[in-house]
Amino acid sequence: MTVATTTARERMLRAKDASRQIARLDDARKSEILHAIAHAIEAAAADVVAANADDLERGRTSGLSTSLLDRLTLDGDRVAALAAAVRDVAALPDPVGRVLEERTLDNGLQLTKVAVPFGVVGSIYEARPNVTVDIAALALRSGNAVVLRGGTAAERTNAALVRAMRDALSTQGIDPEAIQTLDEFGRDGARELMQARGLVDVLVPRGSAQLIETVVTESIVPVIETGAGVVHVYLDASAPVDRAREIVVNAKAQRPSVCNAAETVLVHSAAAERLVAPVVAALQDAGVTVHGDETVAALASGVVPADEDDWAAEYLSLDIAMRVVDDLDEAMAHIRRYSTHHTESIITDDPASLERFLAEVDSAVVMANASTRFTDGGEFGFGAEVGISTQKLHARGPMGLRELTSTKWVVRGAGQVRR
Amino acid sequence: MTVATTTARERMLRAKDASRQIARLDDARKSEILHAIAHAIEAAAADVVAANADDLERGRTSGLSTSLLDRLTLDGDRVAALAAAVRDVAALPDPVGRVLEERTLDNGLQLTKVAVPFGVVGSIYEARPNVTVDIAALALRSGNAVVLRGGTAAERTNAALVRAMRDALSTQGIDPEAIQTLDEFGRDGARELMQARGLVDVLVPRGSAQLIETVVTESIVPVIETGAGVVHVYLDASAPVDRAREIVVNAKAQRPSVCNAAETVLVHSAAAERLVAPVVAALQDAGVTVHGDETVAALASGVVPADEDDWAAEYLSLDIAMRVVDDLDEAMAHIRRYSTHHTESIITDDPASLERFLAEVDSAVVMANASTRFTDGGEFGFGAEVGISTQKLHARGPMGLRELTSTKWVVRGAGQVRR
Repeated sequence: MTVATTTARERMLRAKDASRQIARLDDARKSEILHAIAHAIEAAAADVVAANADDLERGRTSGLSTSLLDRLTLDGDRVAALAAAVRDVAALPDPVGRVLEERTLDNGLQLTKVAVPFGVVGSIYEARPNVTVDIAALALRSGNAVVLRGGTAAERTNAALVRAMRDALSTQGIDPEAIQTLDEFGRDGARELMQARGLVDVLVPRGSAQLIETVVTESIVPVIETGAGVVHVYLDASAPVDRAREIVVNAKAQRPSVCNAAETVLVHSAAAERLVAPVVAALQDAGVTVHGDETVAALASGVVPADEDDWAAEYLSLDIAMRVVDDLDEAMAHIRRYSTHHTESIITDDPASLERFLAEVDSAVVMANASTRFTDGGEFGFGAEVGISTQKLHARGPMGLRELTSTKWVVRGAGQVRR
Repeated sequence: MTVATTTARERMLRAKDASRQIARLDDARKSEILHAIAHAIEAAAADVVAANADDLERGRTSGLSTSLLDRLTLDGDRVAALAAAVRDVAALPDPVGRVLEERTLDNGLQLTKVAVPFGVVGSIYEARPNVTVDIAALALRSGNAVVLRGGTAAERTNAALVRAMRDALSTQGIDPEAIQTLDEFGRDGARELMQARGLVDVLVPRGSAQLIETVVTESIVPVIETGAGVVHVYLDASAPVDRAREIVVNAKAQRPSVCNAAETVLVHSAAAERLVAPVVAALQDAGVTVHGDETVAALASGVVPADEDDWAAEYLSLDIAMRVVDDLDEAMAHIRRYSTHHTESIITDDPASLERFLAEVDSAVVMANASTRFTDGGEFGFGAEVGISTQKLHARGPMGLRELTSTKWVVRGAGQVRR
């Protein structure tokens, strides 16, 4: 841990000061600055990779898992991909200044509701150096300053990336204090960030369910909860076997480690004999272990018995839970009980079931006859993704740049007073 | 305090269950239910007034202030006004089901972003029985169940009102558990409500700055912060004296006890000699005490010396702070330091100052040449007001029924999977 020459609070104060300059930049200028950042990241590739080697060595010594070490690793190609991602963000439309509502009151007052930057966006995340660059780019593109608190495992890598980005701001005549890291302050940095109401306008945690839970519980800065996905696919009585098989396998196995991957399949009892065996077989062919209830186990071979924990599990692996339910109502009751309200999909040819499912299931994204893997900012056409909100306040579902803006009412008068 | 036969948590669970029925009601049905509630409140007027008399007696014994006792008091006319307010809410357009965005992806998936109810809306407020009825009506109109935690000073009045509203739900064939009160649980009720993440979707505190601060700090349920208004009017160098005088007096004195009333006047130094004396005189004629800095005190008579506390004061009374600033930049720096980011207004004939002020001042509502008293859901044409949000997440400024809804993405496919 480096000796910090400023306090965490001082850094956040500087970010808030700098945010005023960032908020006033126009579209072209913000794009230009992001291109400078992309260039600076490329130019700093050797430094970044060297810093990363230090982090990796520390990580190996402290016994980080292979998958964590993989997420942490940056080589020349991955650094180039970071820079490319910044250029992609630069190409997105500016979310600031959009007129969301306009009205002229009877007394002549002209009201305009416009999209404005939040001010300062904070993020607490784990040992993924790409988040450092992603969040900084998205925050700047939407006119915000940013305060980053990444995992200590990536501290040197993040420091090298932040240095490159801040240098790019300086060369562009922008206050480099608009990008801050609190990594050096360890847990205290995270704690101070969560207490910085008034300095930081919104906090986006990214990482494990436990990290998000901690932030949601401890932060007095408003939080956008992202992530955890206990995602369901429900095979209705009329679900065609081919479509059911293809969607379930895609939803689980195309990329099992992400939050929009399916974790539980529910099957209508009237379709169980028809669907369970072929769907289980297809999953097994794709390398998936099926954890099933007794009915599923009786209808297919190689099924591991499921218990209560399986219904609540976010496996993020080649495992899936499967249960036969009496009907649509029982399926929706199961979803109510176990879902994290991220994404649920019904496979059906029955319009009545379809409409009930879409209307009554209370999740950020409800689907009919589609793979849950489509819940994604890129797939939705947002061009970038800040995360997937599973809360109902402000943003729900995939969040793009627009979700990093707030609004402001602008009122133009000619001397009106209230009677 | 009555002995509660159910726990606070059990009541919130029931509200969540009932919320599913409320969420599915159509526009006409919700309106009909609100009319039944209005009728039930009128029918229960004698009970409500009797319960209120008990509360008032307790309040007098425990030494409540005259103004609190006044806010607490319900007579026949005030009960009738409560019922009328419910009918007004019934007449508002249904905010649920609005299509906010539609797109068809290249792969044929049809995406629709629709407005949906939050589910369960919670409110913590003080001894104003009208809030009990207002919030319940607004929550139901927007398809939500509601959990109320009012001040213990109004406990019996609130209980009588809640009883009347729940009876109306029952007679309409609606689960009465959609309206819950936690008043009997005292402070524990508020505490459990603030911890009910997963049961309650959003919490709206209404009341004193201290109450709001407590809720913001302690709640793990997402909060919409409402209220406190250290509101500024800035008189620019070019401000015409008549307009300045009329707006300042209106902004302060038309109704000094509300959050959109002005608390500080800033005057450009170049206009001080021209403006300070007439504006101070007009304020004094309206019964206002002016707390001024040395320059103000030198330019007008009867000015009370202002200190640091005055700049931060939300007087909510016939008092106002006044300071002469060097220029627009110093005015905006003062606002940054002391404003609660509710409403600020510039009085000017200079387009450059006007545009800078509107663009750079970071408040929920920024005005030019208008009284700050216009920051109000009714004045903005929302027909009802849930409160005035001073945070940047989800809602900012006056909140109407729309701000009591969340969104949901509905995705319709024909078997699409992700490649």
